[in-house]
Formats: sequence, structure tokens, C-alpha cells
Amino acid sequence: MSRRSTSRLRVRYAETDQMGLAWHGNYLAWFEVGRTDLLRQTGLTYREIERQGFKLPVIAAEARYLRPARYDDELEIETEVLSLEGARVRFSYQVRRAGEAPPLATGATEHALVDGAGRPRRLPADLRQRLS
Amino acid sequence: MSRRSTSRLRVRYAETDQMGLAWHGNYLAWFEVGRTDLLRQTGLTYREIERQGFKLPVIAAEARYLRPARYDDELEIETEVLSLEGARVRFSYQVRRAGEAPPLATGATEHALVDGAGRPRRLPADLRQRLS
Amino acid sequence: MSRRSTSRLRVRYAETDQMGLAWHGNYLAWFEVGRTDLLRQTGLTYREIERQGFKLPVIAAEARYLRPARYDDELEIETEVLSLEGARVRFSYQVRRAGEAPPLATGATEHALVDGAGRPRRLPADLRQRLS
Amino acid sequence: MSRRSTSRLRVRYAETDQMGLAWHGNYLAWFEVGRTDLLRQTGLTYREIERQGFKLPVIAAEARYLRPARYDDELEIETEVLSLEGARVRFSYQVRRAGEAPPLATGATEHALVDGAGRPRRLPADLRQRLS
Repeated sequence: MSRRSTSRLRVRYAETDQMGLAWHGNYLAWFEVGRTDLLRQTGLTYREIERQGFKLPVIAAEARYLRPARYDDELEIETEVLSLEGARVRFSYQVRRAGEAPPLATGATEHALVDGAGRPRRLPADLRQRLS
Repeated sequence: MSRRSTSRLRVRYAETDQMGLAWHGNYLAWFEVGRTDLLRQTGLTYREIERQGFKLPVIAAEARYLRPARYDDELEIETEVLSLEGARVRFSYQVRRAGEAPPLATGATEHALVDGAGRPRRLPADLRQRLS
Repeated sequence: MSRRSTSRLRVRYAETDQMGLAWHGNYLAWFEVGRTDLLRQTGLTYREIERQGFKLPVIAAEARYLRPARYDDELEIETEVLSLEGARVRFSYQVRRAGEAPPLATGATEHALVDGAGRPRRLPADLRQRLS
Repeated sequence: MSRRSTSRLRVRYAETDQMGLAWHGNYLAWFEVGRTDLLRQTGLTYREIERQGFKLPVIAAEARYLRPARYDDELEIETEVLSLEGARVRFSYQVRRAGEAPPLATGATEHALVDGAGRPRRLPADLRQRLS
């Protein structure tokens, strides 16, 4: 019953490498697109979170690449809140070619909520509720 | 006693984000710089491996971000061969600010050796030996 | 009466730099998104052009930055064919915040059509017609 | 007799695209490496300029691509101050494969000095002198 969202994007030419595939590091940018969209859907954008003086830096990231994505492929990034504990949020991701069931890649990121001085802060009740 | 190398680079302005830190996805590019340098040191560059019709695509990647890197910081990327099994190679990474002992970030990547048709291939004895 | 298209995208967090703005080099990736969409609209995708053994490498690029784009801004990239001569195509670009009239940035790129061996080739009549 | 510097870097795998060449937008990041090194050489780093509350955003950029750069090529970026007028600085760039005379690419960027509020500011005498 956790919060979930789907983002769509096309693989850019700039995102390919000389293997002829999407370069693996771009998936972290796509995961970030997923988080941005999931937060927008909660009614509290990440832009607004930063305006209020908080940040959600990435403290861990992982990805598993199952099948390659290619230039101009239309992708779906499915983002889900995995867990909320203290100052921590974990998201998971599945990347699919639009309309296909098996994912091209899966991943997860872990974030700490920090204030303007960089100190970890418990997730406020409002944010916790929105992400649940 | 495994193969190990150290690379040096400076954080580019283009690599920062609006948190004022190096964007987390760039570490995957830096890990790649580390692999390139480690292979060069074995006497068989990755460029040459591709010329011979083989590739080492990333099939899994992970990073843990302990302390931020900032624009113009001089970094050391320490790369090490973690394991060699069948068609698989695993590398681990430690990113440090030059001259500091505690790492800013650690990570690992897993690769499959594939031939021109994308089929997994056992690591040739020569490559295995160079990486050991 | 030249060929023209409009693309939409949102500025990604990964695309910002520590000035708090979209890093200026990303506009070249957005221009590329614009070309991809313009070609798709002609019925001949750039992916298909490469499949047929041709490429359109960039031989010159320029951009003028008038007002900054920021994280999560929704942008419109208006792409237009500027000229078609011999083996050359020129595109121009205007980047706007969605719904605003004055552009944030303008730009242009020049491309040579080359074959698989990298030799310049006159634009085939079909491609010329589609781009006109 | 203008200020000039040379930077060295290797083309990263992440910087290639599916044409098998360095993606053209990366040259803007390399130009930025050139500016960073030129400023360091003046004794006033760009990091320090930002610490003092000033910025040098790019207001125009151009590049001409003459011959391709490839993965693992060792490049030299020669950066030069082209002009200093009022609040404006212009730099020019030449990118060469190490040890080769003819450039792979040339380019130029124009910058405005702005204060913390984003207002254009005349270049202070000290900075002007360092860049001359």
C-alpha cells in the first residue's frame, strides 16, 4: 500500500555510450526523475522541500542491469517508497521499456533528511504521511 | 594480493548539483576512470579489449556516500579487483580526498565479459592472469 | 515555411550545478532532444537514419543564455531547420519556460551527413524533402 | 601576451556516445576544466571567487568540431583570455590530442561577472590584472 508513481522518458542520444546502449550511470538520473515525480504526486514537490530548508541527499544507491536500454527507447520508471525510518527514506525503482512487463533494470536509493546545516532530521509527520 | 590501482581527478563544475556537492551519479563515471586506469596498468587497455571484439558491460553497481565531494576537490579513486569467476569480474572502489585517509565514498561494480554478439564468455586465461 | 517542432522536458536535478541553475552544457542535450523529435515528426527517425548507415555528427554548436532555467522548470524546446545545403543541415533552437514568450536561451547546430565510412554525402532527396 | 593555460584529461567512457566518439556536449565541460585551471594559475581560484560572493555564469558558448576525439584519448585543452570589458570576460579554447598540432576542436565562451544578487559587476582591478 506504499506510495508509488510512474514516470516516462525517452533515452537521449547524449545518454548512450560507444557500446551502443544507454550508459549505466544515467539510470541514477532517471531514478531521480522518478523521485521528483513521486514527490510532486504527493502534493509536496522536492523543489518546495528545498525551499523550506531541507534536503534529501543520496547516501546509498544500487542498480542491477538486466537488459539494455537504447537510444530513443521510451522508458517507464516505476518508483516506490520502500521504507521510512527516523531520518531515512528508501525508494526502489523498476525501469521498463514502455508496454513491456520484464524490467530492464531495478534499483534502490537511500536518503537522509538533513536541515540547512546538514544535520540529520527526523522526517516531519506531514512528509511521512505523504510518502506512506 | 589482488590487482589495484589509484586514479586522480578533480571534481568538475559540471559535476556539481544545486546542493553544492558533486552529484552522486558522477561517482559511477569516476569508478569507470578507475577501471580504465587499472586495466591500462595491466598492459591490456579496455580500448584494446573492445578492439578484440569483447566488452565488459556493467551488470550491477552500488555506491555508499559517506561524506560529500565538492567542486575542485582533488580526488583519489582506488580500484581493486574483487573477484573473477567464469564470465564475471567484480571491482571495488574507494574515493578519497587526496591525502585524507577516510573515504568519501565506497562502491562496487559487477561486469560480464561478452563477445561481439553479446554472448557471455569465460574470461580468457590472459585477462584473468592480468587481473589477478 | 520550414520544418519545425516543439519538445517538452523538465529540468532534472542532475542537470543543475552549484550556481543553482541548469548547467549550460545540458542545453546541447536538449537541442538533441529537439532534433530527435523534429525528425520523428518527419516520419524518418534519427534511429532509422543510423540504421540505414548514415550519421549526422555535429560540426558546430552555439548557444546564447539569456535567463536561467532551474530544477523542475518545465521547458519547451522549439527546433527549426535553418538551412539544407549539399551535405549540411543547420538547426536553430529556442528554449522557453512553458507558457512564457521570451526565450531563456537560443542556439544553433550544424551537421554533416556522413556515410558509414565517415565520408560526407549529399542529403538524399527524400531526407531533404522531409526536412523542408 | 594574454593569460593562457593548458589542461590535460583523458576522454572517459561515459563521455562517448553511440557514434563511437566523444559526445559533443562534453567539450563544454572540458572548456570549464580549462577555465578552472587558468584561474588557479592566476593565484585566484574560481572556488575562491564564488566564496567571495561572485559568479561567472556563461552567457554564450560556441564550439567547432574539426576531428573526433575518442575514448581514452589523452587531450590537451588550451585556454586563453580573449577579452575583458566591463563586466564581461571571453575565453577561447583549443582541444588537441596530446602531442598533435592541429586541433580537434576550437571554441569560445563569454561570461558576465555577477554578484550574489545576480547583478552584473565590473571586473575588479585585481581580477582584471590577474587575467591580463
